[in-house]
Amino acid sequence: MVMRMSTLFLRTLREDPVDAEVVSHKLLVRAGYVRRAAPGIYSWLPLGYRVLRNVEAIVREEMDAIGAQEVHFPALLPKEPYEASNRWEEYGDSVFRLQDRKKADYLLGPTHEEMFTLLVKDLYSSYKDLPLSLYQIQTKYRDEARPRAGILRGREFVMKDSYSFDVSDESFMRSYQAHREAYIKIFDRLGLDYVIVDAMSGAMGGSASEEFLANAASGEDTYVRSPGGYAANVEAVHTVVPPPVPYDDAPAAHVEDTPDTPTIETLVDHLNERFPRTDRPWSAADTLKNVLVMLKHPDGSREPLAIGVPGDRDVDEKRLGAQVEPAALDVFTEDDFAAYPTLAKGYIGPGVLGEKNASGIRFLVDPRVVEGTRWVTGADAPGKHVLDLVAGRDFTPDGTIEAAEVREGDPAPDGSGPLELARGIEMGHIFQLGRKYSEALGLQVLDENGKLVTVTMGSYGVGVSRAVAAIVENSHDDAGIIWPREVSPADIHLVATGKDDAVFDAAGQLAADLEASGVSVLYDDRRGVSPGVKFKDSELVGVPTIVVVGRGLVDGLIEVKDRRSGERTEVPLSDAVAHLRSLLRS
Amino acid sequence: MVMRMSTLFLRTLREDPVDAEVVSHKLLVRAGYVRRAAPGIYSWLPLGYRVLRNVEAIVREEMDAIGAQEVHFPALLPKEPYEASNRWEEYGDSVFRLQDRKKADYLLGPTHEEMFTLLVKDLYSSYKDLPLSLYQIQTKYRDEARPRAGILRGREFVMKDSYSFDVSDESFMRSYQAHREAYIKIFDRLGLDYVIVDAMSGAMGGSASEEFLANAASGEDTYVRSPGGYAANVEAVHTVVPPPVPYDDAPAAHVEDTPDTPTIETLVDHLNERFPRTDRPWSAADTLKNVLVMLKHPDGSREPLAIGVPGDRDVDEKRLGAQVEPAALDVFTEDDFAAYPTLAKGYIGPGVLGEKNASGIRFLVDPRVVEGTRWVTGADAPGKHVLDLVAGRDFTPDGTIEAAEVREGDPAPDGSGPLELARGIEMGHIFQLGRKYSEALGLQVLDENGKLVTVTMGSYGVGVSRAVAAIVENSHDDAGIIWPREVSPADIHLVATGKDDAVFDAAGQLAADLEASGVSVLYDDRRGVSPGVKFKDSELVGVPTIVVVGRGLVDGLIEVKDRRSGERTEVPLSDAVAHLRSLLRS
Repeated sequence: MVMRMSTLFLRTLREDPVDAEVVSHKLLVRAGYVRRAAPGIYSWLPLGYRVLRNVEAIVREEMDAIGAQEVHFPALLPKEPYEASNRWEEYGDSVFRLQDRKKADYLLGPTHEEMFTLLVKDLYSSYKDLPLSLYQIQTKYRDEARPRAGILRGREFVMKDSYSFDVSDESFMRSYQAHREAYIKIFDRLGLDYVIVDAMSGAMGGSASEEFLANAASGEDTYVRSPGGYAANVEAVHTVVPPPVPYDDAPAAHVEDTPDTPTIETLVDHLNERFPRTDRPWSAADTLKNVLVMLKHPDGSREPLAIGVPGDRDVDEKRLGAQVEPAALDVFTEDDFAAYPTLAKGYIGPGVLGEKNASGIRFLVDPRVVEGTRWVTGADAPGKHVLDLVAGRDFTPDGTIEAAEVREGDPAPDGSGPLELARGIEMGHIFQLGRKYSEALGLQVLDENGKLVTVTMGSYGVGVSRAVAAIVENSHDDAGIIWPREVSPADIHLVATGKDDAVFDAAGQLAADLEASGVSVLYDDRRGVSPGVKFKDSELVGVPTIVVVGRGLVDGLIEVKDRRSGERTEVPLSDAVAHLRSLLRS
Repeated sequence: MVMRMSTLFLRTLREDPVDAEVVSHKLLVRAGYVRRAAPGIYSWLPLGYRVLRNVEAIVREEMDAIGAQEVHFPALLPKEPYEASNRWEEYGDSVFRLQDRKKADYLLGPTHEEMFTLLVKDLYSSYKDLPLSLYQIQTKYRDEARPRAGILRGREFVMKDSYSFDVSDESFMRSYQAHREAYIKIFDRLGLDYVIVDAMSGAMGGSASEEFLANAASGEDTYVRSPGGYAANVEAVHTVVPPPVPYDDAPAAHVEDTPDTPTIETLVDHLNERFPRTDRPWSAADTLKNVLVMLKHPDGSREPLAIGVPGDRDVDEKRLGAQVEPAALDVFTEDDFAAYPTLAKGYIGPGVLGEKNASGIRFLVDPRVVEGTRWVTGADAPGKHVLDLVAGRDFTPDGTIEAAEVREGDPAPDGSGPLELARGIEMGHIFQLGRKYSEALGLQVLDENGKLVTVTMGSYGVGVSRAVAAIVENSHDDAGIIWPREVSPADIHLVATGKDDAVFDAAGQLAADLEASGVSVLYDDRRGVSPGVKFKDSELVGVPTIVVVGRGLVDGLIEVKDRRSGERTEVPLSDAVAHLRSLLRS
C-alpha cells in the first residue's frame, strides 16, 4: 500500500530535540521515526516501526539460515531462576524489579540465559536432541543510570538473543562459529561499518566473548586496533609483558625524605631536584603508584584491594571492573583508611601491602612490574619514599591485574603494531558461556554411554532497536538520514511538485504501478506544500532513491535522485518502473 | 525452510498439564505450542510462535486495509498520563506498578489510551490532520487475581490496540464502523465462531461499546441472546420495563408482625401461612429485597447505596459493578450498620431509605418497580414487614439501576423473544470513547473556523495471543487441535513412515518441492519412531492437511488426509505438489 505523506502520521521538525546529544537521536526524532515517552523509553512512529521491522526481518532470516529456531519468552520473569544463577543480586540497580499483587518478586528481563536453560532442561534429556540453537526477537529492559542518546541506549529496547546448547566443546565451537558468521552477514546487510573485537564478558559470565562494534564517535565503547588488524575492547587488552630485568648491580633500596610529595607530579619534581639522575630526568614512569579500592562482593561483603601501576598510567575503572567481576567497585573511604592504620595515605608502598605484610591487604600489580624493575614508591610513612626498590628482590606482589589504562601507541599483544584508540557502538556480542548456567540450573543430558553430561552453552545478542540508531550514526549527512536499501522505510520517495493536477495524476499512477510491481513507495502527495519543503523532508527522511515528478513532466520526464551522491538522472516516465526496478536490484 | 520433526524444538506430551482446566490450555501445552514460565505467563515455542505470528499478520493486514497506521509504544509507561486520566487509581491491583532506580513511578501498560492521546496532541493540531487511526500489536500486562486457562487469560499477553481520532461525531462513526467491519473480517479469517454483543465499557470509560465474543463454554463472559438475533453482554441488558399498574383500589399499606423472617424464604412461608392470598400463593417475586453496598470512589471516599430488587432475583455484581463505575464495590459491614442506626438489618424498607428518609442513604430500584406495583418489604423494625406498599404512592425511590440478575427466559429488550444465556471469550472490543481522554489530556485541534475543538476518540482491541487459544477452543477434537488454514503453523504435515530409505528420500524430496512452490511443510522425518506415534502427534499438532508417505510408495501413491473430517485420498506422488497446491487454494 502506498504511504501518502498527506495522511501519514508524521511531522518532520526543523529543530533538534533539546535533550539530544548524538546525531542519530536528533535525526530520528526530527525525521519522525521515534518520539520520547519517558527517559530512555521511546515510541516508534510509522516510518520508524517499518525500519525496525526491516532490521528484524534481516536478523530473522540469518538466524533461520543457520537452523536456529524462533521462540518467544515473556519479558516479565519470576525471580527464582535469576536467584539460582546469582544474577538477581549481581544486576544491582540495573534491572527493573517489581512485585505482583501477591507480593511475589519479578523482574523485567534484561537477558534470558536462565529461562532458555530451564526450558531446554524441561523438554530435552538426550545428546540426540543436541545441538540446538534457539532465538527470540524480544523487548528487553535495563534501568540504565544515565539513559542517553535516544534509542542508542534505551531502557526498553528490542534485542535478538539466542542460545546454543551442545553436548561437547567441539560441537559448541561449531555453533559459536555459525553464529559468528550469521552476525557478519547481518551487520553487512545492515550496511554498518563495524569491527569484531575480543571482549570481556561482563556480567554475563563465561570464558570468552567477542563484540561487534559499529564505528562511531558517539559510541560508548572504547576499543583499540592495530595496523596489523588486532582489535579488542579495552577490557580485553593483554599488556605486553617486558622481559625480566637483570638487577645484580642494582643498589640496595634506600628510603629518602620527600616532604610534601603526595602526588606523582610533586614527587617527580622533588626527585629531579634532590636526587638528579645522570642518564635522564626522573619521570612518572619510574614511580609505582599504589591505589586502594574496595570490592563489594555479591554476598555483600567488602574486601580491600591494592593495585600498583606505573605512575604515568591511571587505573582504568572499566578494565579493573571487568577483572574483579562479579564483585563491584566501591570507594576506599576515610573510614577504611582509619581501619588500616599502617597505611600512610599518599605514601603507601609494598612494605605494608600483600599477604605477608603489615596491612594484610591483597596487592596486585600491573604486568609491567616484572622481576628486576626498579621503582620509586611510598615508604609507608608521611613524607618518605623508597628509591631503587626492585621487584622480586625487595617486594613480591600477590599477582598481577590488567587494570592500568591502555594508551595510544601501546604495542598490540599479537605484535601487530602500535595500538590506536577508537570508539564504537556495541551491536552484537557472542559469548562462550561454557557451563556456567547449565551447572547453576542443572541442565544435563545423557551422552552416548548413558552418562549425564552438563551441556555447553553459548549466548548471542544483537541490538535490534539500537541498530536503527547505529545505522543512522554510520549513514547520514547534514541534510538528514541516508538509509541502506534493505532497511529503508520505503524503496522510493516519490515527490510530486507544483500545483498541476496532471503532475499529481501522473505521480499517483506511478506510485500505484511501482507498488503493483513490488516496489514500496512513500509518496509526497501534499498539495500546497512548496517543493523546497518537500525536498528538505525527503532528504531528512532518508529514503535512498528520490523520484521527482514535476516540471519535466511536460516533456514526459521524471527525475531520479540518489540520496547519498546527490546525482540526478532524467528518465522518461514511460520507462520509470523498469528503470527503478533495475536500480533497486543493483 | 522445511521444519523437520527430528530437529524441531518440540516434545509432545501424552498427559494434560496438572494446572490446566480448559481444553485449549491442555492441548496447546501437550502439542508443544506454549510452556508456562510463571502463573499466567507463558513462553511461545517454535510452533506456537508461528501461529501467533500468523494471527498477527491477519490483524495487521485488516488494519492496514482500513488505513490504520502501525506504530509501537513502550510497555513500560510513566505514571503521569495515567494520573491525568485517573486510571492510575482506578486500575487498583490489576496493574503492575514499579519504580525505577530514581524512584519514579511506572506501570506496565494494560492499554494505551493516554499514550496515544498524548502522541497525537504532540504532533497534530488541525482538523486537516484528521481523521486518523493508529494501531499497534504489542505486549500488554494485567495482574489478574486468578490467572487461569493458560493463554486465554494471561498476565502478559499480546494485543492489537488501535485508536481513532476524529473532529466530529459523524466522522467518528465512520471510523468506528470501519473498525467494526475490519474486526468482522479478522474474526472470520481466524475461523472463530463468534457473536457481536452490546457491552458496557468497563474501566475504559466512554459511552457505548460492542464486544466480539467467541462462543465457548470455557468463556468467562456471560452474554444473552434471543431467537430474533439480539445479543448483549449481561452488563448491557436493559430490563423491559412493564407499564404502570393502576392502584386506585389498592388497600392502604399495613405493617404486620413477621417474627423470625430475615430471609425471603422465611418471609414467603410466613406470608402463606399467616396471610394467605386467595388468588395464588405468595412468591418471592411479591417481595422487595433491599440490599446495601458500599461504593468506594476513586478519591477514596465511601458512599452507601441501597438497591431494591424483586425478591426472586439476586443482585448481579457484574451488572451492578458496571453501573457504578468508576466507583468500586465494597461490603457494607457491621460497622457500617452501626453507623446507620435506623437500619434494621434483615427488615430494611423504603421507610428509612432515600434522600427524604431517615437514613439519608441513596435508594435505587430495579426498573420493574414501576408506579403502582405492590410489594411486601421490610418495615424497618426487627420482625416486622409492610404489605401492600405501593410504589409511587407509599414510596418514591431516588431512581432505577440495572443491577438485578438477567435470567434465562427474560424478554429481549428489542422484543425479539426470550433470552437465553451463553458463554463467550472476549476476543475484540470496540469503544466509543467520546471525549473522555481528549478532555482529560487536552487533545484539541483547530476546526475549519479556527476554533479549538476537542477530538472525538474510539479505542479498539483484539486479543491476539488469546485468539490462539480461542481458535483451539472452537476447533479441536479428542485427538487434538484442528487449525484453520490461515493460522496453521504449516500448510502440510508430511509424515514418512517405516524404515525404508526410499520412503524418506521421496518424502524429503516432496517436502523440498512443496516449500519451493510456496507451501510450508512440517516434515516428520524421525527415524525409529512408530507410525502410530507419528499419526498421534500429527493429530495433536493439528495441521489441517496431513500427507503420509509410506507403504503406498511402491505403487507410486501417497495418502492425503483431512485432519477435520478424517477423509483420506490416495494421490500419485507425481501429482502430489499440484494436488496439494490446489487443495490449499480451495
